[in-house]
Amino acid sequence: MSTRPFVIVGGDAAGLSAASKCKREEPDRDVIVFEKGNWISYAHCGLPYFIGGVVDSLSDLLSLSPTQVRERGIDLRRNHEVIAVNPAEQTVTVRCEKTTFEQPFGDLLIGTGARPVSGPFDLSTLDGVFTVHGIDSAAAIDAYLSDPEAYDESTLGEGPVDRDQITHNRQFSSPHTAAIVGGGYVGVEMAEALIERGLDVHLFQRSGHILPPFGDSIAAVVEPHLRSKGVHVHTNTPVTRLVGDDDGRVSGVQTASETIDAQLVIVGVGIRPNTDLLSETEISIGEGSAIRTDEYGRTSLQNIYAAGDVATSTHTVTGEETWVPLGLTANRAGRAIGTTVAGTETSVGEIAGTAVLKAFDLECGRTGIIDKDDARNHGFDPISATITAGSRSGYYPGNSETTVTLVCDQQTERLLGGAIVGSDRAAVRINTIATALQADRTVSDVEQLDLAYAPPFSPVWDPILVAAKVLNGKL
Amino acid sequence: MSTRPFVIVGGDAAGLSAASKCKREEPDRDVIVFEKGNWISYAHCGLPYFIGGVVDSLSDLLSLSPTQVRERGIDLRRNHEVIAVNPAEQTVTVRCEKTTFEQPFGDLLIGTGARPVSGPFDLSTLDGVFTVHGIDSAAAIDAYLSDPEAYDESTLGEGPVDRDQITHNRQFSSPHTAAIVGGGYVGVEMAEALIERGLDVHLFQRSGHILPPFGDSIAAVVEPHLRSKGVHVHTNTPVTRLVGDDDGRVSGVQTASETIDAQLVIVGVGIRPNTDLLSETEISIGEGSAIRTDEYGRTSLQNIYAAGDVATSTHTVTGEETWVPLGLTANRAGRAIGTTVAGTETSVGEIAGTAVLKAFDLECGRTGIIDKDDARNHGFDPISATITAGSRSGYYPGNSETTVTLVCDQQTERLLGGAIVGSDRAAVRINTIATALQADRTVSDVEQLDLAYAPPFSPVWDPILVAAKVLNGKL
Repeated sequence: MSTRPFVIVGGDAAGLSAASKCKREEPDRDVIVFEKGNWISYAHCGLPYFIGGVVDSLSDLLSLSPTQVRERGIDLRRNHEVIAVNPAEQTVTVRCEKTTFEQPFGDLLIGTGARPVSGPFDLSTLDGVFTVHGIDSAAAIDAYLSDPEAYDESTLGEGPVDRDQITHNRQFSSPHTAAIVGGGYVGVEMAEALIERGLDVHLFQRSGHILPPFGDSIAAVVEPHLRSKGVHVHTNTPVTRLVGDDDGRVSGVQTASETIDAQLVIVGVGIRPNTDLLSETEISIGEGSAIRTDEYGRTSLQNIYAAGDVATSTHTVTGEETWVPLGLTANRAGRAIGTTVAGTETSVGEIAGTAVLKAFDLECGRTGIIDKDDARNHGFDPISATITAGSRSGYYPGNSETTVTLVCDQQTERLLGGAIVGSDRAAVRINTIATALQADRTVSDVEQLDLAYAPPFSPVWDPILVAAKVLNGKL
Repeated sequence: MSTRPFVIVGGDAAGLSAASKCKREEPDRDVIVFEKGNWISYAHCGLPYFIGGVVDSLSDLLSLSPTQVRERGIDLRRNHEVIAVNPAEQTVTVRCEKTTFEQPFGDLLIGTGARPVSGPFDLSTLDGVFTVHGIDSAAAIDAYLSDPEAYDESTLGEGPVDRDQITHNRQFSSPHTAAIVGGGYVGVEMAEALIERGLDVHLFQRSGHILPPFGDSIAAVVEPHLRSKGVHVHTNTPVTRLVGDDDGRVSGVQTASETIDAQLVIVGVGIRPNTDLLSETEISIGEGSAIRTDEYGRTSLQNIYAAGDVATSTHTVTGEETWVPLGLTANRAGRAIGTTVAGTETSVGEIAGTAVLKAFDLECGRTGIIDKDDARNHGFDPISATITAGSRSGYYPGNSETTVTLVCDQQTERLLGGAIVGSDRAAVRINTIATALQADRTVSDVEQLDLAYAPPFSPVWDPILVAAKVLNGKL
């Protein structure tokens, strides 16, 4: 080989997208993927649906098998941990079961992802306390939830599940009450999953509303809906301590005012980029403590790229650095970097922070900048409007209330962001707003959009048009 | 009054939107609406759903009652036909039951809509032959479909239904077989409605595929779906003649090769703008024989505006004149003209021809320029890609195939149009494409969109992103 190999640290969305694309564009290039664990290429976003029973088998969550990866000509090495990056030597130090070795690279991609943070809690001391991160955590939670007598191992599928964890967690009697610490994406999805599993569920949010990225007007719709489904939603309620029983199993959570029984605790208070590997280097770190990357996913170190949850991105609206760890961002950046490394410089693109979420019967979406303080911090003069309109023609069965918030800058009238919630096709409507953001559209532009109308799908004035009309009226 | 009145011809979407908006902006202005018939402000797009039984009562289809219109301060005159427009005098000639009079105007809006054309058929000679246009036609078809013994008059609701037509049509025995001439929007919606009513339904399309505005790749999905629901779809099959029985009731339709029994015939072969009123004037006529209008809805005659199905619009993609009679266009233009007439010049906006359609379990959408000949006629060098991708993550229940076509110009790579079909939230996804069209986005821009991903609603790569990726690969 004349070219030194393309080395990738991390065998998930960003890493394998890059590996696959590079191999397709430049089949003769050596592409090596080091994955420190057993699992590769799984659907992180599907974990709550496995726990809730919507997805039958863990195997369903695997996008690519190791065999499929190898069939693409990628040199995949699982259980290989990269323990150092040596920019001067253009090598990485790799540790596997038997040995430690230096691997030279022509190009290197850091795709090490992120890990859950645990807030003030030590998660290792009590049984029954989990974060939701990685296939093994979902399998462990499922085992812990199951009746020990009726546990069905077949749901574990074909993959390399950590059997010790399963054996440990399946011994416990099924929990009746769960506490979820954190009302973000994971918290809300897990609330639904655990209600599906028949538990009494308490959801704790430190601030005044759950789902902070969606804004208060969306949360104000979601919170009563969660309550109507049986979730006890506690806002303005930090959990201060986890309480255990004499056997070391969690028995409750403590707040400023009370202790609530819980035999299961899910901690979903955020994630943090896995940058420890780079701590000995002079790599530039940016927003969210993630690795700073440029338009092509390049870090500050020569021939070293980063992508996915470990890397920063450029925000569509501000043009500034941001850190929004989401699936499409990782896949797209990985693919772009694979193309660049193979010889064709390709932008990783900008992100608007578009996200959607199912909360029982509700569909929630958000994109761009919704929080006004956030907008002001970026030099904007924000103003917003929130409306509620029908999802279909009023006379058509299934018409249901859809709430839309739009935020724009008062000076330029440029749209900055938006959020939506409703039970009828609300989520995918957020894409309209995301598309407008990419194109720097004003509120007037949005008000003039020729959006779809047919009685079963939308009223004459789509809820987004109604919101634009009202926001425009405030300018 | 110092200002002469704002006079509006036609009490439907465009006219009443203009009247309401003008009155709100300039409450002292006299606003007079002349409607030649009895009905105002009804939901034309809801007619097939009344006939199909999805909507219970005709009253549900009325957006505004005459009382509500008058409560807005609008001088509504039903059964007043404007029979001449006199530009030199700035008056209209109005005929009502008792008299004919001249009405001066300060501003005049022509909102006379369109009427169905009947192709080669004389619709007046046989019973059981209908177009679907106007509340009375829906009521007549429903009466004709009903068992004479079991006909339920309560579905007629409160409005001024033409009772003579009802009495005439309800006398017939229920038809068993229906023929629909024309596979456009009305044809497909009526096929579903008549299947719901238990009929054996034949749908005839002159050209090679139904739904020409959506393009062949969408039709290729819809046609087998219609067949799976029991509709006999005949493409490349012009109906040459309607056949009647001795009593003057339709008994079948004739094609080049056969005669097919039908006791009900729906003719849906298009509509034509109602411009006869202007035939004695020198008003400029444009695309589709509609009244030519400018950015503000102004015609070539002083102080005379036109909006809705009778007027041309400006196409978002070509910037040229077009005629696409759709509900949002009418409402928006009316509203803009009402604002302009009240003193604030407001653009009627451009249209992309965005349209969505329900075809049983399928949702279809289209926007912009899809037909390649059409694109070439506007100076573009079109290329397209059609893909089929999942609507959700593959492992999430309800994931279903979604087909997307995107068309762009090979030279500029600008997106020209797109179409979509699928059973899971496909229709509203077309809004993403419509938004991209308004902003002159390229295929690369679309490929870089930060669209929503969550397992229940979309795969990591939204079908539109997949289509953009494939189309980009062809450039």
